[in-house]
Amino acid sequence: MSWIDDPAFRTDQPFGPQTLPYGVVDVDGGPVVAVRVGDHALPLRSVAADLGDGLADLVSADSLDPLLAAGRPVWSELRARLTDLVTTDAAPRGARLVPLAEAPARLPFTVADYVDFYSSRNHAENVGRIFRPDGAALLPNWTHLPVGYHGRAGTVVVSGTDVVRPSGQSRAPGVELPGFGPSRRLDIEAEVGFVCGGPVRSRVPVADVAEHVFGVALVNDWSARDIQAWEYQPLGPFLGKSFLTSVSAWITPLEALAAARVPVAGPDHPLLDYLVEAEPWGLDLALEVRWNDSVVSRPPFSAMSWSCAQQLAHMTVNGATVRPGDLFASGTVSGPEKAQRGCFLELSWGGREPIRLESGNGAVVERTFLEDGDTVVITGTAPGVDGAVVGLAEVAGTVRAAVS
Amino acid sequence: MSWIDDPAFRTDQPFGPQTLPYGVVDVDGGPVVAVRVGDHALPLRSVAADLGDGLADLVSADSLDPLLAAGRPVWSELRARLTDLVTTDAAPRGARLVPLAEAPARLPFTVADYVDFYSSRNHAENVGRIFRPDGAALLPNWTHLPVGYHGRAGTVVVSGTDVVRPSGQSRAPGVELPGFGPSRRLDIEAEVGFVCGGPVRSRVPVADVAEHVFGVALVNDWSARDIQAWEYQPLGPFLGKSFLTSVSAWITPLEALAAARVPVAGPDHPLLDYLVEAEPWGLDLALEVRWNDSVVSRPPFSAMSWSCAQQLAHMTVNGATVRPGDLFASGTVSGPEKAQRGCFLELSWGGREPIRLESGNGAVVERTFLEDGDTVVITGTAPGVDGAVVGLAEVAGTVRAAVS
Repeated sequence: MSWIDDPAFRTDQPFGPQTLPYGVVDVDGGPVVAVRVGDHALPLRSVAADLGDGLADLVSADSLDPLLAAGRPVWSELRARLTDLVTTDAAPRGARLVPLAEAPARLPFTVADYVDFYSSRNHAENVGRIFRPDGAALLPNWTHLPVGYHGRAGTVVVSGTDVVRPSGQSRAPGVELPGFGPSRRLDIEAEVGFVCGGPVRSRVPVADVAEHVFGVALVNDWSARDIQAWEYQPLGPFLGKSFLTSVSAWITPLEALAAARVPVAGPDHPLLDYLVEAEPWGLDLALEVRWNDSVVSRPPFSAMSWSCAQQLAHMTVNGATVRPGDLFASGTVSGPEKAQRGCFLELSWGGREPIRLESGNGAVVERTFLEDGDTVVITGTAPGVDGAVVGLAEVAGTVRAAVS
Repeated sequence: MSWIDDPAFRTDQPFGPQTLPYGVVDVDGGPVVAVRVGDHALPLRSVAADLGDGLADLVSADSLDPLLAAGRPVWSELRARLTDLVTTDAAPRGARLVPLAEAPARLPFTVADYVDFYSSRNHAENVGRIFRPDGAALLPNWTHLPVGYHGRAGTVVVSGTDVVRPSGQSRAPGVELPGFGPSRRLDIEAEVGFVCGGPVRSRVPVADVAEHVFGVALVNDWSARDIQAWEYQPLGPFLGKSFLTSVSAWITPLEALAAARVPVAGPDHPLLDYLVEAEPWGLDLALEVRWNDSVVSRPPFSAMSWSCAQQLAHMTVNGATVRPGDLFASGTVSGPEKAQRGCFLELSWGGREPIRLESGNGAVVERTFLEDGDTVVITGTAPGVDGAVVGLAEVAGTVRAAVS
């Protein structure tokens, strides 16, 4: 049925023809734009002749940047052409398939601005209780707007990049003066990121989100909780986050997630007009967090309180523009259950309740925060059409010792 | 003495041969790299043949980006060559001078990450008293590290760009629910910005700041105080700032400010090692804030508590990289006197003490925050060698009505 001979390229597998995520991989020593088909990369340069002139140029670049700038009509056309191309019997002339293991991934686009939201009510309440035990779990603005802040675009890296433990200032409980050293509370944040493109524009209505969101990536917003706790008031997180943010190598097109759209559960009061969405833009994504050999959490993205459409509308309502390469992330995805929490700060309740990690050989270790050598892999899936499963590619990283 | 016939091109004027700031202006319909000589732009393409091959390429680009990437040795060499070139008797063959009025300025470089610090103790204390009247004016971390946060790089614009009044959520005092509308508390922040270049690097020691700071620009970090007050907890300012940040069109090279270097007044406790500087990197810059026809403030940059070297060291100590095009700003510059405060929030003490603006014809109006049609111009000077005055080019903007 398809010329692509890969058992993972089937609709019951996450990277079958229903997904076709975009990435950039090194082939023959240089970066090429590709789509993922099962466990292979299909360099688009190798099939450019079958795509027509306009599309051929876009996919023959060394990053997704020109494609991001091209906008929704082009994204839809390219996806339709590629869907035809990978589901025909005969291989297009020149088509090449490279096993993923032989195609190292690069960060697939130039990150313009990176914004991180805070849109899981469970996460915000848990963090509020842990960081501000004497205050309200949720601040008054939280149910009226998607709280967010800018992160560091220059340290967004592709999945697989090592995570060097950051050093910085922190202050131990009950001590007056801060000290300096490697973070002792290195954490993850399992998030869903939205990669933007299309025309530069401000005041994007919720109804227009698909004109500006190209696709979805998993994000791990590595966080040094001890550095963050000392620095974050009054201007928000800075060095506790800016050392590294990992994104998956493959961007799942927004169109592949059409069957996953669900309403978000809004607050018990009306929203201001610019945040009201007529069509639902929540997404029923099932995330999984693996810490070394153990799955420690399964955060449900459907439990988020603000959609990507509301986030984009909010982010631009003041006149700020969205431009190709902008990346915004959901904030930590945490469900209501303990085993659905998307960061170790919550899973260990501020470090007070160790998490048991079981390895394949029966050994058990306890963890609160990350130790050197630990690896975290976050994966995700969404429902497709007719029982298909749509994949979100993994975002992975291994912790390395601090630089002395 | 110089072939440049411009009465403003003298050492007792801010843009004489001691300054030579870099910018990008439109000449013959396209952008060219230029240095400012008095009230003229000298397009460097027109003298490229006199600079030698390596430098000629760098200055023949359509932005400062290649020059920023080139690094300190090249910056020093180019400045030395240009200094020779503009102080000789005979005009280099082909040299062209364009009056500034005929050379519209562009944003001279691609802003990578934009970080805004908060390094004036007077400002931080005043804002703390206004925003948190029941809490401590200064939070405990403030004297131990330069507090900062990431801003929006995509909305950094060149001086002269109109400031469209932002709309957004805010909550009136004593009211439970927020409303939406044009900001009623549109403010300025008079700041000094540092434009980065050289090799991508993390953990930059304070002693190496000149390897990574190309030059200095004035910054106006326009701020919607009502939006900011409602949104900023717990993750910091976002839409209250992200609609626009203006930078001057001309970047004064760091070398031009050598005679302006002064120690910063540190806290009354020791600093952690990575923030201790052997050589002083404070700068004795005199700023002036003009609101329509009135000078309303003269903020002294020498009163800041953290230097650019300390800010850069802090920003990268966790492993985050600095890269060409990064822009970091000082935070609002406020001196100890009322007439030295760098924003209207402070000058009007939260809107409670109107500011009198006098126009040339004797009319007086009162203001607390900005009204549509208002223009703010911030300028600055620094001491040069032998009584010379070094200029920081103006950053200006006029407020336009909100988009409905």
